[in-house]
Amino acid sequence: MVEHGGLDIMCLNKSYCHSSSTSSSSSEREKKIFTKLTVSLCEDYPQKNAEVLSGQYGTNLLLIGVALMLAIANHSAYIGEECLLLFITILMILQLIWMMWYIARRDNQNEVQLERDVHATTCWIRGGLTLLALLSLIMDAFRIGYFVGYRSCLSAVLGVYPVVHAIHTIAQVHFLWFHIKDVIKTFTTFERFGVIHAVFTNLLLWCSGVMSESEHYLKHHTRTLTVLGYANVTTVDVSPPCNCTTSACSMFSNSLYYLYPFNIEYHIFVSALLFVMWKNIGRTIDLEYNRKKLPTRTQGLVVGPILGLGALASTIGVLVVYIIHVEESLDTRESAISMFYIYGVVMLVLMCSAGVVGLLIYRAEPMPMDISENPSRKLETELLFGSAVGSWLMSWCSVVAVSTTHTGSSYRWTNLTYSLLIILEKYVQNLFIIESLYRHREDDESEEVEGAEPTTEIYSVTSSMATSYNGIINQAYENPDKDSVTMENEQEENGERYGCPQKHMGVASDVRNKMQETLSKKRQILKNITVFLFMCNISLWILPAFGCRPQYDNGIEEEMFGFTIWTTVLNFAIPMNLFYRMHSVASLFEVFRRV
Amino acid sequence: MVEHGGLDIMCLNKSYCHSSSTSSSSSEREKKIFTKLTVSLCEDYPQKNAEVLSGQYGTNLLLIGVALMLAIANHSAYIGEECLLLFITILMILQLIWMMWYIARRDNQNEVQLERDVHATTCWIRGGLTLLALLSLIMDAFRIGYFVGYRSCLSAVLGVYPVVHAIHTIAQVHFLWFHIKDVIKTFTTFERFGVIHAVFTNLLLWCSGVMSESEHYLKHHTRTLTVLGYANVTTVDVSPPCNCTTSACSMFSNSLYYLYPFNIEYHIFVSALLFVMWKNIGRTIDLEYNRKKLPTRTQGLVVGPILGLGALASTIGVLVVYIIHVEESLDTRESAISMFYIYGVVMLVLMCSAGVVGLLIYRAEPMPMDISENPSRKLETELLFGSAVGSWLMSWCSVVAVSTTHTGSSYRWTNLTYSLLIILEKYVQNLFIIESLYRHREDDESEEVEGAEPTTEIYSVTSSMATSYNGIINQAYENPDKDSVTMENEQEENGERYGCPQKHMGVASDVRNKMQETLSKKRQILKNITVFLFMCNISLWILPAFGCRPQYDNGIEEEMFGFTIWTTVLNFAIPMNLFYRMHSVASLFEVFRRV
Repeated sequence: MVEHGGLDIMCLNKSYCHSSSTSSSSSEREKKIFTKLTVSLCEDYPQKNAEVLSGQYGTNLLLIGVALMLAIANHSAYIGEECLLLFITILMILQLIWMMWYIARRDNQNEVQLERDVHATTCWIRGGLTLLALLSLIMDAFRIGYFVGYRSCLSAVLGVYPVVHAIHTIAQVHFLWFHIKDVIKTFTTFERFGVIHAVFTNLLLWCSGVMSESEHYLKHHTRTLTVLGYANVTTVDVSPPCNCTTSACSMFSNSLYYLYPFNIEYHIFVSALLFVMWKNIGRTIDLEYNRKKLPTRTQGLVVGPILGLGALASTIGVLVVYIIHVEESLDTRESAISMFYIYGVVMLVLMCSAGVVGLLIYRAEPMPMDISENPSRKLETELLFGSAVGSWLMSWCSVVAVSTTHTGSSYRWTNLTYSLLIILEKYVQNLFIIESLYRHREDDESEEVEGAEPTTEIYSVTSSMATSYNGIINQAYENPDKDSVTMENEQEENGERYGCPQKHMGVASDVRNKMQETLSKKRQILKNITVFLFMCNISLWILPAFGCRPQYDNGIEEEMFGFTIWTTVLNFAIPMNLFYRMHSVASLFEVFRRV
Repeated sequence: MVEHGGLDIMCLNKSYCHSSSTSSSSSEREKKIFTKLTVSLCEDYPQKNAEVLSGQYGTNLLLIGVALMLAIANHSAYIGEECLLLFITILMILQLIWMMWYIARRDNQNEVQLERDVHATTCWIRGGLTLLALLSLIMDAFRIGYFVGYRSCLSAVLGVYPVVHAIHTIAQVHFLWFHIKDVIKTFTTFERFGVIHAVFTNLLLWCSGVMSESEHYLKHHTRTLTVLGYANVTTVDVSPPCNCTTSACSMFSNSLYYLYPFNIEYHIFVSALLFVMWKNIGRTIDLEYNRKKLPTRTQGLVVGPILGLGALASTIGVLVVYIIHVEESLDTRESAISMFYIYGVVMLVLMCSAGVVGLLIYRAEPMPMDISENPSRKLETELLFGSAVGSWLMSWCSVVAVSTTHTGSSYRWTNLTYSLLIILEKYVQNLFIIESLYRHREDDESEEVEGAEPTTEIYSVTSSMATSYNGIINQAYENPDKDSVTMENEQEENGERYGCPQKHMGVASDVRNKMQETLSKKRQILKNITVFLFMCNISLWILPAFGCRPQYDNGIEEEMFGFTIWTTVLNFAIPMNLFYRMHSVASLFEVFRRV
């Protein structure tokens, strides 16, 4: 009884609110539900409350972590990094226990009862995450190596943490592969806590990674400034107070920072996936929704990949030149920054144009939007929108700084253009991705039309409709599989309905062939655009992830906003921007498979 | 054609996705829609995209404002407050033009076409907002007076801004009274931009108010610290470089800060209401949803109001004592802070208990949740949750600080208890409010039952059902007004259906009377709890709004996190906390009318 409580409530609520559409024979079923109700409601917690209850729990976990981080950021004497790591370790162990319990219980369950949400993730995303997880494991190995070298003077927590993190990573990847699509229907209230705990543990790991990374970059930045004679800031050095017993300690600690970006992306992506799982708890998935398979077509892909690879290659060139020149001398520093902005402007103009062309194609070819429920897609659009805010803020700050100060830097106007283009590019790209994700797929329809020509379902439906036209039941509307009846289908149906002979059908198929030709041409253009944008977003992720951050180096904004405010803005905006790029890459991949 | 484009698309989308439930006679209507479709889709923009397009526009408006504020916060030489005020003035003028256009167009429209969402706001909220708007107008008057005094050396923008703000306030209150419930169905894409522009203009006004207020408080705080000998910080004085030509300048500038809290609440509330209006654009409201009226019952209200008034009175006492003592000397300062924490602990324990009792009553009396679409309620719960984050963060920081530092302050442990109780209280209160808002109202059902005893609709429905039981059409389910058929109704129907005589009915009504008695007793308890929480939330709003902020004064957290980090946290958390309290007050009022 307890086990199905959540479901019962949902069913009841549905019948409660939409009862006007239920048929006359339902009164007995209703009676049964009502008798069940009194029991199930007492024993299970309403879904909405469980959501709030667990959501608040998770948020507070994260906030405890953030409070600890703020204390550490101040280099307080009372609290060290160990406290935070200890807290995270405990959270990871709890998550491990929950995952073990979940998997053990799930394995004992009847296969028939298990529902899955195929939209929750794709094997491409899981593959990518596995790769990121592998790099995280290498990071853990480096951390263990570092701890072993300094074990005489480091807290034991610093040794335990990477070990637990490695186990956590392996277990979590296993969980992602086999359970992330599960729609939980039993013990929902408890499972909600488990899943949200996992979500926020990963978010906290992300925050902690972001903090270490920015701190490292800031230290590196002030060191460079001191070398160049710009500033004279003494940094707090945190190397341990004893000697390394192995020869690899400095290698380990230096390599760590090249692996951080991957670890950071891994955790934020996992938390997004787990959040979708949390949203799916207690949902009822309709079968039709799960039925669709997405075939990927790749013909006609030339311009997009070539341009994209060009962008990627030039990005790596720019990265290398920038990192070498920015630390050399004041002159090379200025020219490196100028180079970056010019490169950026060219890239962004191309990306904006690609996005606009994509949107125009959509406008030229109207198609209704797919508004069916899909938590994964909803989250995707919200994250795109939300994570763009960080870099919009950064760009508007640059615009304000450049347009009001009067410094004579050579890159002043390119900086302004670059910032405005960044805003425009995110605006256009978000529109393009969201529209692509929400359009009804053309595949669904054209396939059904293609499949209709032999004697299949559609044909029999339309013919049965022709005979039963006097209006008893329209099968096309009763059959849930045929929900997405298209304009083309409609035309065909209309044709048959009014008794058009085969000759007419021939003309219709001619017209359809032509239509499909232009359709596939448009689709090819869209595919090329998507591939190009995909590569460009990878490029724009690589640059800040590996240390090319002219916002720190150009000095204009720092003069305007002061060091503290500007670095705070950057510490907030750059991680969000990195996430935005990675997330766009994943979304564009999805778009590529859909168009 | 253009005018109805948005609606057509929605209709189409619905039939597209839910076509399995449409009846057989719809094929001709469908055909008509399809012919319309090709025109309407070309001429209007899909709803989802218009949402993203306008949402991104609004977000960027806000971010420009935030960038300007950050520059001002740094006291940069290149940019002054005039820039920000000029920007806000332009936005307000644009909003005024849009509102005029909207009202003029709406007045010309046919009354029949206009749909309204009764859930969007209540006249109580509008009344409260009108009051806040009046206080804002007084503030504008003070500002104009201040400008007149210093007009020889102040920028003209400082004179134009309060005039435009006053006009904006009056026009906006008019708009709130007569148009906020409108469901816009024509020119949807354009109107979306208008409404979101209004939302973000108000948000920006909120941000700007919050900034001025925190800056003022911070200045006051450092001055106090200097007087007490704690710190020696020189503050930037911003009094104009000329003499006041009237005698009231200092009165105006000092009084301003007592009016700020009201102005701030006014703008954030208006933006929430406008956001609901934005969400409602293009929606189709079902009539049943709009039909319900909420009668407010007040019998049995004794304990709640008395306790609440007690809380309110003691709060005002605490406020006065605190503000006087905290600036007097170090000793009185410490005792004032101790007093505040003890008072806070008592209040919060009472509030937590009240919330827990409310939740227990809900658990004892299971009732299905109302999950019908209601953007206003959804926003309300999200805002409760979101705005609680600020003060949770603040409290966790306090917990971290108190439990790791070793200062000997007398209020150390009361601070810890207070912080933990703040977290718990918000947790419980959110659960209570959200559950209250999402429960099906008992009124709907009991009234229908009461109304059913004479020969009304329900009776005729049930009797017709008894005769036509062989299952053709169940009227109770076809009649949209009878959607919320209750358990009790069901029992009655079952009774009649199986031919129970009058005797049985008598027993049933006895049982029902008893049930209603316990129900009304429970309802009375809930009402008392709600009133008590309502008063307590007003109390906890008053304290920080009028300058009782021990988080600045107690020194423990500042020692732990450093001055910069801690004031940043407070500048973020305190405005959110103020909004949380005001928003809870509004929600609890809604809850009071529902239970």
